Amino acid sequence: MTATPFVEVDAERLRLDLEENGEFGSTGRDPPREWGRTVLAGTPANRAARDRLCERFADVGLEVTVDAVGNLLGTWTPPSADPEAAPVVAGSHLDSVPEGGIFDGPLGVYAALEAVRAMQAGDVEPDRPVGVVSFTEEEGQRFGEGLLGSSVAAGDRSVAEARSRSDAGEVTGEETTLAEALAEIGYDGEGRLDAGEWHAFLELHVEQDTTLERAAIDSDATEPGPVGVVTTVTGITHATAELVGEANHAGATGMGERLDALSAAAEFVLDVEKSARELADDYSETAVGTVGSIDVEPNATNVVPGRARLGVDIRDVESEPMRRVLADAEESLARVERERGVETSLERTLDVSPTPMNDRLREAAHRAGTEAGIGTLDLPSGAAHDAMMVARATDAALLFVPSRNGISHSPLEWTDWDDCAAGAAVLAGAMARLA
Amino acid sequence: MTATPFVEVDAERLRLDLEENGEFGSTGRDPPREWGRTVLAGTPANRAARDRLCERFADVGLEVTVDAVGNLLGTWTPPSADPEAAPVVAGSHLDSVPEGGIFDGPLGVYAALEAVRAMQAGDVEPDRPVGVVSFTEEEGQRFGEGLLGSSVAAGDRSVAEARSRSDAGEVTGEETTLAEALAEIGYDGEGRLDAGEWHAFLELHVEQDTTLERAAIDSDATEPGPVGVVTTVTGITHATAELVGEANHAGATGMGERLDALSAAAEFVLDVEKSARELADDYSETAVGTVGSIDVEPNATNVVPGRARLGVDIRDVESEPMRRVLADAEESLARVERERGVETSLERTLDVSPTPMNDRLREAAHRAGTEAGIGTLDLPSGAAHDAMMVARATDAALLFVPSRNGISHSPLEWTDWDDCAAGAAVLAGAMARLA
Repeated sequence: MTATPFVEVDAERLRLDLEENGEFGSTGRDPPREWGRTVLAGTPANRAARDRLCERFADVGLEVTVDAVGNLLGTWTPPSADPEAAPVVAGSHLDSVPEGGIFDGPLGVYAALEAVRAMQAGDVEPDRPVGVVSFTEEEGQRFGEGLLGSSVAAGDRSVAEARSRSDAGEVTGEETTLAEALAEIGYDGEGRLDAGEWHAFLELHVEQDTTLERAAIDSDATEPGPVGVVTTVTGITHATAELVGEANHAGATGMGERLDALSAAAEFVLDVEKSARELADDYSETAVGTVGSIDVEPNATNVVPGRARLGVDIRDVESEPMRRVLADAEESLARVERERGVETSLERTLDVSPTPMNDRLREAAHRAGTEAGIGTLDLPSGAAHDAMMVARATDAALLFVPSRNGISHSPLEWTDWDDCAAGAAVLAGAMARLA
Repeated sequence: MTATPFVEVDAERLRLDLEENGEFGSTGRDPPREWGRTVLAGTPANRAARDRLCERFADVGLEVTVDAVGNLLGTWTPPSADPEAAPVVAGSHLDSVPEGGIFDGPLGVYAALEAVRAMQAGDVEPDRPVGVVSFTEEEGQRFGEGLLGSSVAAGDRSVAEARSRSDAGEVTGEETTLAEALAEIGYDGEGRLDAGEWHAFLELHVEQDTTLERAAIDSDATEPGPVGVVTTVTGITHATAELVGEANHAGATGMGERLDALSAAAEFVLDVEKSARELADDYSETAVGTVGSIDVEPNATNVVPGRARLGVDIRDVESEPMRRVLADAEESLARVERERGVETSLERTLDVSPTPMNDRLREAAHRAGTEAGIGTLDLPSGAAHDAMMVARATDAALLFVPSRNGISHSPLEWTDWDDCAAGAAVLAGAMARLA
């Protein structure tokens, strides 16, 4: 629709949704200091969260569909809309990392639902159907691939491939496929939710960094926000570095006779950090390089490490700085191989280019903020989100609200309820404008 | 006895013992390239190895005793000996590290048995009983403490403490105490084997370093050996370093906002290596410092590491270089704490002073070598062995044979059969001289 719609979200209703959803898989609550939950895809906690969402869908007349990878959609087709028109869809995910927070994912799902409720209450008359979506396994913590549901919806991964992915047996004690896990919780649907058929997709998420928090402090504002409007979702390269030396007795092997894989790996860790720091300082402040994991063999105090395997994560909003950090990582390995005699290899396991968000949708969000009296701020996203994947199939936008201290994937994750409501208001305004 | 005894060991009989013992817990054999075994204390493989040893004891009239920590002793009391006299005992251990070699431990046990058989065959008439001992859990791979059996025999640890030590449940699926494991394999004996009652203790072991191998090449000798006579067993300090930063999203946390525990740990690893290298170069060539293990949390590619725990191993034949490496390690942690804002701690978990071996026993070994036409060489031991622990209770000596490429704790561990026999011959000569 084209006229400026009036929508007013109900902050308390949204808060209740997030609090109740935060009880599923709860690992203990003491808000706002700490509130953790563990909701892996296809587990009983995930079933409970899905059941509650379906009930809320039903409360306000949304038609529920579940596809063959468990993506869950509630569709509102108001009398004003052409039922055949491409819908405006918003949402996120209900799964979490182990001991994650209660906002990462659910905020985007329930804010989208709150937007629909606000449109219904505000006499908005959309020309298009409006959908609320919860994608399966965004976090990749059970079946090993993040953005699993949205990648199928975007046509980037086949339904069959996703359904046949196995976990490591950590939930039921034996290896389980996604298809089996979905059947187990009663969410093994049919067909494929096709994001290519959507008019637009919007996702509200916690920032997981401190840009918005710092902006709020700097502006000395008493009102909530600002709400972030993502310009670009950073690209991601994941790589596995392997360094092979020689395991040997720590007491009986002189310092000059060693091929210590851990010492060599330590040089690599520092080289990756140095490369990313220099690029962030001199070239692209959003560039990051992380060695997040290390596994050493045999990993015994009294044995010189023979082998080290490290997980490397490189991101930026532009491809060139990412390419440079990766090149520096390769050069680091070549150097330790030359200087220390260890053997090294670097294997890329994930390569996602930076993804710009859609200008028209971003503009709608900025205008919705202005109309609601809520400040908005352009910023990049350092993390991947379902919106990044959906952008491959249709116009997509990603909105952020502040994360306290930038912390997420942790029970310490927190966003003030006022900020949640502000984000939902901007989302609702943008959805109403686009629908 | 005082007259020079004549003893001649049977190289083939010793080889057969080691080969047959190497089948227990075998992880695959392709000698001399590779022959691995996994024989944790109190497992079926350990039971089989013990049973075979008891049979060989019985074959040559040795009286078998098992104490309350599973230490196994076979005693030969010849008619010439005073049964009440303090015995001369030799031996080592039958347990291994996971996927260890076939020589580390069993060589010392079976060479001691071969020495007894050689004395019996050679009409030696000892004044004292002669014992062959196999200590329980030298490697510390199941119940978490190396030298477990010998520390009880030396009076350094109580029987009750040792018996109540638990494994991590990796063998039977549930936590098992040493007492339970010994009962399970039928080797839960009574009393305490008291090394303080022994006249002397000798242990033959593979060197696990390349000093003897290099000496053999340098001397261009065609005969086996040389056999090493250990001057001092190095002291050992084990410490656990912990570095606590802040786990955070690898994509959303800028390079300037991180408290990366792994990067901080990498500096520590390199500082420890540098300290030990410099001390080995400039002060004491036997000084070694190793970071052998590292465990990072949450250890995920896409999360900035929040916590790192590292196992540090420091050794030398003198205390002062060890003290310096430890001081450098502490200084390194203080520096990364200052420069990076992470919190650090260093906890010492093991502190063993350097242990000189007994001069009288060493002299007996050198003379036995001379009489047998086998070269001997003084050298330090970088590794701890049961003899180090027994030295707290009585006179002890430690003999070494070459390890191919210095490799041990690995299926690649190898000692030529001629070298095994040479070591056994020196051991037998020394035992006959001392008995």
